Order: sequence, then C-alpha cells, then structure tokens
Amino acid sequence: MVALPKEGNPALTVDSEHNVYVTDGKVGTPKKGEVLIHVRACGICGSDVHFWHMGQIGDMMLETPCVMGHEAAGEVIELGEGVTDYKVGDRVAIEPQLPCGKCYLCMQGDYNLCQEVEFSSVWPYDGFMQRYKTHSARFIHKIPDSMTFAQGALVEPVAVAYHGIERSELSIGKGALIIGAGPIGLCTLALAKASGATPLVINDISKERLDFAKKMFPSVITYQSDLKKTNQENAIEIRKLFGPTEYDQPPCVLECTGVEAGIVVGAYVTRRAGTLTVIGVGKGDINNFPFMKLSLAEIDVKFINRYHDAWPPCIRLIADKVIDVDALVTHVFPFEKADDAMRTSADPSNGNIKVMLQDN
Amino acid sequence: MVALPKEGNPALTVDSEHNVYVTDGKVGTPKKGEVLIHVRACGICGSDVHFWHMGQIGDMMLETPCVMGHEAAGEVIELGEGVTDYKVGDRVAIEPQLPCGKCYLCMQGDYNLCQEVEFSSVWPYDGFMQRYKTHSARFIHKIPDSMTFAQGALVEPVAVAYHGIERSELSIGKGALIIGAGPIGLCTLALAKASGATPLVINDISKERLDFAKKMFPSVITYQSDLKKTNQENAIEIRKLFGPTEYDQPPCVLECTGVEAGIVVGAYVTRRAGTLTVIGVGKGDINNFPFMKLSLAEIDVKFINRYHDAWPPCIRLIADKVIDVDALVTHVFPFEKADDAMRTSADPSNGNIKVMLQDN
Amino acid sequence: MVALPKEGNPALTVDSEHNVYVTDGKVGTPKKGEVLIHVRACGICGSDVHFWHMGQIGDMMLETPCVMGHEAAGEVIELGEGVTDYKVGDRVAIEPQLPCGKCYLCMQGDYNLCQEVEFSSVWPYDGFMQRYKTHSARFIHKIPDSMTFAQGALVEPVAVAYHGIERSELSIGKGALIIGAGPIGLCTLALAKASGATPLVINDISKERLDFAKKMFPSVITYQSDLKKTNQENAIEIRKLFGPTEYDQPPCVLECTGVEAGIVVGAYVTRRAGTLTVIGVGKGDINNFPFMKLSLAEIDVKFINRYHDAWPPCIRLIADKVIDVDALVTHVFPFEKADDAMRTSADPSNGNIKVMLQDN
Amino acid sequence: MVALPKEGNPALTVDSEHNVYVTDGKVGTPKKGEVLIHVRACGICGSDVHFWHMGQIGDMMLETPCVMGHEAAGEVIELGEGVTDYKVGDRVAIEPQLPCGKCYLCMQGDYNLCQEVEFSSVWPYDGFMQRYKTHSARFIHKIPDSMTFAQGALVEPVAVAYHGIERSELSIGKGALIIGAGPIGLCTLALAKASGATPLVINDISKERLDFAKKMFPSVITYQSDLKKTNQENAIEIRKLFGPTEYDQPPCVLECTGVEAGIVVGAYVTRRAGTLTVIGVGKGDINNFPFMKLSLAEIDVKFINRYHDAWPPCIRLIADKVIDVDALVTHVFPFEKADDAMRTSADPSNGNIKVMLQDN
Repeated sequence: MVALPKEGNPALTVDSEHNVYVTDGKVGTPKKGEVLIHVRACGICGSDVHFWHMGQIGDMMLETPCVMGHEAAGEVIELGEGVTDYKVGDRVAIEPQLPCGKCYLCMQGDYNLCQEVEFSSVWPYDGFMQRYKTHSARFIHKIPDSMTFAQGALVEPVAVAYHGIERSELSIGKGALIIGAGPIGLCTLALAKASGATPLVINDISKERLDFAKKMFPSVITYQSDLKKTNQENAIEIRKLFGPTEYDQPPCVLECTGVEAGIVVGAYVTRRAGTLTVIGVGKGDINNFPFMKLSLAEIDVKFINRYHDAWPPCIRLIADKVIDVDALVTHVFPFEKADDAMRTSADPSNGNIKVMLQDN
Repeated sequence: MVALPKEGNPALTVDSEHNVYVTDGKVGTPKKGEVLIHVRACGICGSDVHFWHMGQIGDMMLETPCVMGHEAAGEVIELGEGVTDYKVGDRVAIEPQLPCGKCYLCMQGDYNLCQEVEFSSVWPYDGFMQRYKTHSARFIHKIPDSMTFAQGALVEPVAVAYHGIERSELSIGKGALIIGAGPIGLCTLALAKASGATPLVINDISKERLDFAKKMFPSVITYQSDLKKTNQENAIEIRKLFGPTEYDQPPCVLECTGVEAGIVVGAYVTRRAGTLTVIGVGKGDINNFPFMKLSLAEIDVKFINRYHDAWPPCIRLIADKVIDVDALVTHVFPFEKADDAMRTSADPSNGNIKVMLQDN
Repeated sequence: MVALPKEGNPALTVDSEHNVYVTDGKVGTPKKGEVLIHVRACGICGSDVHFWHMGQIGDMMLETPCVMGHEAAGEVIELGEGVTDYKVGDRVAIEPQLPCGKCYLCMQGDYNLCQEVEFSSVWPYDGFMQRYKTHSARFIHKIPDSMTFAQGALVEPVAVAYHGIERSELSIGKGALIIGAGPIGLCTLALAKASGATPLVINDISKERLDFAKKMFPSVITYQSDLKKTNQENAIEIRKLFGPTEYDQPPCVLECTGVEAGIVVGAYVTRRAGTLTVIGVGKGDINNFPFMKLSLAEIDVKFINRYHDAWPPCIRLIADKVIDVDALVTHVFPFEKADDAMRTSADPSNGNIKVMLQDN
Repeated sequence: MVALPKEGNPALTVDSEHNVYVTDGKVGTPKKGEVLIHVRACGICGSDVHFWHMGQIGDMMLETPCVMGHEAAGEVIELGEGVTDYKVGDRVAIEPQLPCGKCYLCMQGDYNLCQEVEFSSVWPYDGFMQRYKTHSARFIHKIPDSMTFAQGALVEPVAVAYHGIERSELSIGKGALIIGAGPIGLCTLALAKASGATPLVINDISKERLDFAKKMFPSVITYQSDLKKTNQENAIEIRKLFGPTEYDQPPCVLECTGVEAGIVVGAYVTRRAGTLTVIGVGKGDINNFPFMKLSLAEIDVKFINRYHDAWPPCIRLIADKVIDVDALVTHVFPFEKADDAMRTSADPSNGNIKVMLQDN
C-alpha cells in the first residue's frame, strides 16, 4: 500500500438515528480501473444535511452508517490495475456517479438516468467527506494547476446548473428568470450570465440571499417574493421587472427550489412558447400545478436529474475564468471538524451558502 | 350579391342562458381578402357543447348569442376584393383561426399562440354551424375532388392531433400510449399508427370507446382504467402491456383527456428520458402532479394549443389515404336540425364519437 | 467445446490480391461476455464486394485475408463466462459494431462514431459470412420466433436507413425524395412510407431498379434520371412531380447513393428551409457542391455513419409488420457457395438487390 | 410634408456601369404603415462594394441606378397612416428586409427565406445610404437613448452573426473556431465569447485582421493560415491549438468567409458529431468539398441567409453591454462624402473593418 501523505482518515458519517460524527474510516485499496484519491476539498450539499436529518430522500433510505459528500476534488495518490490515463499527483475533480454503461439510458447518452447508478454518499455508497477514498478512474477529471481544489469541488454544483442550462432554452440576448438564490440558483445565475442571457432576474424569499446574489452579480435584478401575495401576484410583479409586453417576458425560467411556489411562479412568468426548466427537487407530488396556463401558452416543462458529460466544460469555464464562483464558499472547515461543518451548513441563521471541507 | 345555391342560412346559436336553437342567420358579404363559403359539412366539438352548457371556457365568456362550429369544409361561392388564389367553386377546408400576423408569436411561427387571434365560434366571433359564412382567404385550404366535405371538416380535429404529434417525440419503431379514446384520442391514434409507432396502447375509462378504437385500429392494444385502482396502479398495468423492462415502456405518451387522472397515469407510464405531451385541455390547476417521478426520470412535459401550418399535411394524409378517419362520424344531421345534432353530441349514452352537420 | 449442429465452418474470405474463396474457418470459443453464434443468414453488402475488388475503402485497408459479412442473424449455441441475458437457442440479429464504451462519443450516445470501434468484416475483424462466429453478447438482439433469420439479417440495412431517417427531418404528411433505389434506398423508402411521409418520389438512373421499387411500393412515384440532362435539369423534373410551388417541394431529401450527381440533384430539389440527409457514402471529396443554393435556402446537410440504438426498433418494425422488406432478397445461396453469392452480388446484369447466404 | 431637419438628401448611388456617386435623392412620403426616417448612421457592407464593382450578386442584377446601404439607424421624423407603435423622435435601428408575410416560410417563422422579400439596397429597392428614407414601421426597432446611432447601425452585421450562432450548436464551456476576421467574423466572435464558448480560436489569412481581432478580444487564440500548406494541413495546425485529443476539438465551427478554403478547413477541424455553420457567402458551387470526412464524422453542415427575429436581442446585447462592437468602426464619413466612404471600404490596404456614414 502507498504511503499516505497524512495520518488518519477522518470521515463524516451519519446514521439512521440522525447522528452525525467523524469516524476514522478505513482507507480503501484501488481495484482494477480505480484510483485512490486524497480528497483535498469537499463541499456540503443540502442533500447531505437532508440525509442526516431525515434518514432518507424519496425512496433512498439510509440503513447503516454512511459517509456523506459528493462535491469533491483531490489528488491521485495510487493507481489501481490498468489505469493509464492518470498518474500519481494528478489533480482531479470527482464526478460522483458510476453508471452501469450497458442499459439503454447509458447507450443513448443519458447515463445520469441509469437505474443501476452508484452515487457516492447515497447509501450504501460512501461519499467524499473523508480524507481518502477510491473511485473509478473513468469518473475523475483533471483540473489545471491554476484551479484550486475548492474550485474543483464546486464543479459539482456548477454541473447541476450546467445540465439544467443545457436542457433549457436559454438564449443569448433574451431574458431569463432564476428562482432560488441558494448554491444551485447562484451557479445557474453564473452560467446564465456567462451565456449572454439578458436581462436576468433572480427571485427568492430571503432578502439576505438576494443581497448575496446582487453582490456576486451586480447587473442582476432581484425580486423578493412577498409572502402576503399569491404566487400569481408575485409572478405579475416579476413580469413588470422584465417589461410591459408579453414579448419582454423571459422565454427561459430556471426553477432552482423545487417547491410548489417556485414552480407556480415560474409557470406564470414564462413567456408564451417558452420553457420552464425545473432544476430543483422537492416533494413527490405538487398541487395547484397551473395546467391551463401552460397549455394555452404552450410552455414546455423540463426537469433534470444530476448531469452527464458536464465536468470538462464546467472545469473549463472556471479555469478560463468565464465564470467565477469562488464567492459561494462562505465557510471552511478541516475534515477533522466535519461535524461542525455539517451543523454550520444546517443553520439558516449564519448566512452560509456553501460550507467547504478542506485538507491543506 | 351572389345568388345563393340554397335559401336560408340556418345557424346553430347558443346564448348565455344555455339555450341552443337554430336561427336564420344573416349572410355576410366577403370583405377585402375574404371569401363567402357555402359550408357543406361542420363537425361538433366538445367545446361547442361546453359553451352551450357552461357559457364559458376558462376566461372566454359567451356574452351575447353566438354561432358555434369550427370544424368545417365547404365551397367558395363569392370572392372578396383582391382574392386571387381561389375561384368560385373551389372546395376548401377551413382553418378557423385568424392570427394578427404581426406579434412576435406570429413572426416566429407560433401563430396559434397569437394573443389577438380571432377564433371562429369563440364569442364574439361566429362559427361555422351555418350554411353561409365569410372567412379570410388566407385561412382556407383547397381539398381535392376525391375528398368528401365531411373529410374536409375532420381535418380540424386531425390538425389538433397532428400538432400534438409534431410537438411530441413520437418515433417510428418505438411504442406510444394514447390516453383517451374520444375524437381527439382516435385522431391521435390514427396519426401515431401512420407514423410507424409500435406498439400502440390506448387507454380510456369507457369500454365502449375502447371497443370503437379497436374496431377502427385492430392492431392497437386497449386498456380500460380500473377505477378501483389508483392512478399509479393503473399505470403499472399499462406498463405490463408494453413489456417487462423500462426500455420496453413508451418514450412517447399522448394525453388526450386533460383530466388529472390521465396526466398522472401518463407521467407514470412514460419511459425514463421520454416525453409526455398533453393534448387534452381541462381545469385551470391540477393536483397530485407527480413532480419527483418526472424529475428523476427527466420526462419532458409538453402542451399544445390548437395548431399551426397543419391543414396542408392533414389534407394530404386523408387524400393520399395514409389515414382513414371516416369511421369517426357516427351521426349526421342537416343544418336545419343542428339543435338535435347538439343534443345528440351531448348525450353520452348513444355512442356518438363525431356528430356531423351536412348540407348536401 | 459445444457440439456443433453442423460440421465445418465455411467462411467467405477475400484477400488483398482480390481473390474470393470459401475456406473452412476455425470455430472460435466465446470469451467472457461473448456468445458463439450459428449464423443462419447473412446478406451481402456492396462494401463486401468493394473490399474484394479494391482491397480497401477509404483508409480501411485489407492487409491479410479477412472474412466478409456484417448483415447477419443466427442462433446462440454457446455462452461465454458471465453471459446471463441470453440462453442457448436464442434467435438473434447481430449488431456488427463493438464500440469502446469509454470515449466521449460513446458516453454522449454517438457510439457509432467511436474511433476505436471494432466492425465485423473490416480488417482485421472477421465478419459473419461463416457458419460459426463469436460476438459480444452486448451487441446481439433477440428476434421473435415469428421472424425469419433472413429478416433478422435484413435488420442491418434497415438500421442504416433508420438512422438516416432519425437524423433527417422527415415528417408525417410532408413529401420526401429518396435518391437511389438500391437496397439502402429501398429500406429508406420502406421507412419513409411507414413514417407517413407523402408524397414519396424515388429517383435512380436504372429503370429496372425503379420498376422493382414500384412493385414493392405501388404508391411511390418514380423518376429515372435523364443522363442527357444536367443535375439541375433533372432536379427541375423531379420538382414538377411534387407540384408547382416551392411549398409543394419535399422538406426532406434522403440521398442514398453518395455520388456527386445524387447530392447535387438532392440539393436542388430540397425545399427552402429543408434538410438534405446523405445516407450514401462515396468518394473523399466532391466537386460542384451547390453552396449558394444551400446557403440562400438555408438547407441543412446531414450525414450518417452506420447506426446506434437501431436494432430494437427495426426488429419491432419488421416483427409487427409495419414494414415488409422480404422482397429485397432476390437470390439465396448456401454458405458453402458463398463465392458464387459474391459473384452474383457483383454482377449488375442479373437484377439482384440483396443476395443472402442461408444455412437452413 | 414634414419640415426636414436638414436640407438635401445625399444618396450614395451605384449603376450598372460601375459608377459610384452621390445624388440628391427624392425624399419619399410615408405610406400607410410606413415611417419616414432621418438616417443618422449607415455602415458599408462588402455586398455594397460588390454591387458597385460587379453589378450583381448571384441572380440579383442591378438594372438601373440604385441607392446602396442596409446597415442603418436613425430617427423617426414622420408617421404614415395607421402607425401607432412609434412617434416622431423615436430612435430606431432598421431591419432592411420586408417579407410578404403570407407564404409558408413567413408563416413558419423563416421570414428571412421569403421569396418575395424586398431587401433595401438590392435593386430595385433603394437602400439607406441616404439621409431620408421611408420604411415599414413593422421592420424598425426602438433603441434606447444610451445607444449611439452607429451602434444601432451595427445591429445589422451583429444580427447576421446572431442568426448564425442561433442555428449553430455553439455551447457554453465548449470550444469554437471562427474562420474569417472581417466584420462578420468579428461580430460572430463577439457573440461566441458572450455565449460562454471557450476556448475560442479565430483564423484568417491576414495578420492585420488577426491582430485587430486579438486587440478587440485579448483572450482569443489566432491562427494565420499558411498559404504554403494545404487546407487539411492548416486544419491540423488549428486542431493542435485546441488540444491533443478529438474531444478537445471544437464541436462548433463558424465559417464567415464563404470561400472554399474556409469551408474545407472548417470541415477538417470540426469535432466528430459537431456542426459546421457557414455564415459566409460566396461562389455558386464549390469543389473539393470533403464529403467522406463529414460523412464518417456525422458533421452537420448548416447555412444561413440573413436573419429573423434578431433585432430585439441584438439591441439588448449592445445596450446591456453584453457585447461591445464599437471598435469595429474604423472610418467615419458624412453622407455627402459617401463616395469617398465607398472607396475607402473597397481599399484593402487601409486596415478598414467597418466604414460608417454618419449624419450628426
């Protein structure tokens, strides 16, 4: 076995009793086609917190203790048999999904929808909030020396937004509305801006988040939802920001919250013949879905599930400085204090956007 | 004024008091760019009955008496100023929508979505259940002598289905589910079959309608919804008809009822990465919309509002005998008895599919 | 080793000296993930004849003797390690390409474009004009008992046409022109007809081939190119068959010859804003490419290279009798006389369309 | 008639004898639906020079003297009957094409392809290199006070590039090659950059033009074609700039010269499964079109003819400072010296990119 650069493998673990703690995890040995990675940065996602608090997301149950984390970058420190595309010392961002490669979805290019996918941090597959972890060499992607590991870790949420943008009908020179100013909403805004969409409006219920968005992207127009108004009334206010005519409205709405209010507001803002792309995830069923509004206006509704073929373009966008998402990282913790990091991420009062574990 | 081939202009009229009656309507004079048409066949649509019974559809209110009917074909009997593309005696099918031609929707090819459209039979625009009516020469389409006027009138419901098929991802050699075996569902089934989709399953709650569908299209597989089952359970039964694997499921579901049960069943049957196209119209909002099913499977949801550029291909399909929809016409009435025709169309017990007015 | 149903493995071999002969090939043993197939039918493709006569196609050189044939169906007679999706006795159609499964083209669904593909019958990969051959279990596809092995073998040329149709903008109710009435042109015509395109015109220089097309598809309109006319003049004649106006012209032209005349005629017939899909292959460069015609009319030009994800839909189309391509098989030979079969296929005077090897 | 802000209507006129001169043109009166515009800026296009020198472009002949110019912006100074969307004093950019609004191309959203289009500056339709000109109010577009008239005039070449980008498969985070560093190439580069494409390479034969491009867009990589190399060899050099693997190559190539060398180089650089979009126009036919390269790699070839629905997004892109194309204007002349402007534009030795007439 390779000499490890640091002792110990602190691993952020949650269990079905809703405990969160750091264990000293076992360090794996890379099998054929795998590499061992020294994880240098790993962001915390809302779904990590959700698994800790609820023990499940939809049908995905946490049955035994599981290491969280799927937004990671690190250094290759050992090669399994047959790995020739990488060498020890390579700096890589990690794509945390391992599809089967054989089903019709994998064959037709929709490998993110593979029903046999192994997703790191969804039980029984451990995630990357640990110092050392093996992963398939086919799902790691080199990052240049000019990129930090934190930037490498941010590729994952950027990839979610990228896949949403790719599926949407976002278009240069035309407006877009982004609903939700959390990490995914902000990544989506970064990409929408970098795609030449204009004007851009971002909507949230939180003034703090909108202020954060405005600071990151001064040209964006913000709209704080008025909770005393109906969804349709809030939609009317947003429409006024785009302009007086139907033509002025955004043909592209990118919904990044997954809650009913967001979807309904999005449906009412979208321009006739436009597309509402729902990037956010939420409850199984939603009510008050504005069917006839969508029907009479022929608005397509699209959804996304993770990403495919997204790491190389997203790495380029950050490396070539087409987008700058550094400001998303509001808090940094060492792996040994990953439990504090989780608590920080779960606390809505501290203004956190992205909490990052780093191993310097 | 031109000599009319027959005396009188019997016109099927409904009013806001839910009366239906035949009046002797005034015969118009074609203005610049218009023609006067001797309507030789006009089908009754569910929306005609709905306006009679409810006095409105969504925001569209019936304020004063209005002539119904928008599925029509006839003969040109007089030309307004400047009409050169047609001559007296031309046999034509009528596209009953007159868009503004100037807004961004008209300019970009979505003239069906024009917000200034004048739609015949939606108040205050009289429809075609009358012997004589003027119409813009730009929205009539020649039919060959080999086509009957009834076939010419059936182009309208075929055009609805055609626009749905065009927007859907229906594909030769792949399965499709059609939900709803009314006139639109059957036109959709006719086009799906003519497009090479296979296997084809049609679903309805009515055994009679499914028997009708089976008689028209012997190769189609029918599924009668079991009202004691949940929508998801009915979806599971339909999936079994397509085959045991996810791959076997239809990438294309064409929902032709517009009711919640249809949309939910459709969502659960659609194959991962497929498209659910909602052709039917219904209530403003729907509940229990299966958001996470659609999200995890990346199923696009599309809607349609009428049609554009649809008459020439639909006329060809009927004229060239690619589709045969003659069997849809279950009842025929003369214009003078249009009120009886409306009552027949409104009666679910008589097995009517399409009630047609004809002026022989 | 499994007991073979018949003795001997007659294998049609060509070499770089342009010899063609039947050898008694070695019978392989299926490796992990492979099956051994008793080839029951194998069609001869023009490219098989081309390799024999020329020893190469483009950059693909024949360096040592190689078994031809890539249009095959047969019976699974032995399973390699780990094969669980098939059992001995399964009847299968063979997809003769084995992509790497790892490159960006494989990942994005374009596995036909994989640069590491192993294609059976392209040196150094032996083909299926032999009684027994191993193949990856991932690229065989079950066919129902109702299908003949000859039909199973015909899936390959149908798949070429299918991929062309999928990439084209063929549309129900609109016209299409097919250029070339050889096996690929006829398969393309079968699929265009089954897709509801109308009217359909097929063009060739050979009256015999057009007569054959007309016999198979009585509703098709044929046009024999007049070699005394220029390409543009022939295009004008074809346009007349579609109708007098630009709108009447086909938005979809499917070029199945790959020769300059075909491409130029296709460009001049395609309707403004239409698509010319070149299915045929030919010389490296072509001259007299009608750039400004295509530019002013915004005609997209698309090309295809083989197929992907095509076997299941093509099997269904034949099994469900949506298309009937049996008539394509004009000559049948046993494997032992495969050299005679090759000579028959190479002889333009005998009216052959598809020469089929069969092992009954 | 309205009082004109300035006396005289200097109009740059060319005739079939290849003369170019400034006349005092007649000032028109706006008809129903028209406005009279005081042209404040008008750029000179290569086609203006081409008409002067050659007297024709393709089939379009100059039969009698004709005023050139179709890149214009100005002020509305008089309203024709029925014009309500504009008022005197409105600052507008001019879309110089008037389609019929009735043909299938206009109906389906491809109004740029209308065969009855009246294009300003193509005989017999006078253009905008004159101080006063009438135009349909439907094809003028308001510009904000923050935009200069020169920027308003530049919307036209930006619109050409915009339409090309819209039709291409340009994608954020992926590379693109722009061939040609003239005005259209530079507008295309501006839009490609604003769309988030990266890396960007621009190719030309002129070092001066590439230096100009580099100065406008410092992050772009330039490649000067080596005329001693073949097209394929130059393509290999360009490929090296993108990276060592096929994946690194640009899926999007935007050809802005319309010459054979550009198209051939573009074909050889485009990544497998990518798209070559030809924005430039040129000779009727081209030779050495690399058919088999495109066929084996399934590269789509698209073409464009002008633009549709492009003014509002292009105005926004300039007004919102998403793109900055001011530097394109290298020379400015008053309308009275338009003949000098034409000569300057036609002289390749003075480093001109865009010569602009202005009426301050």
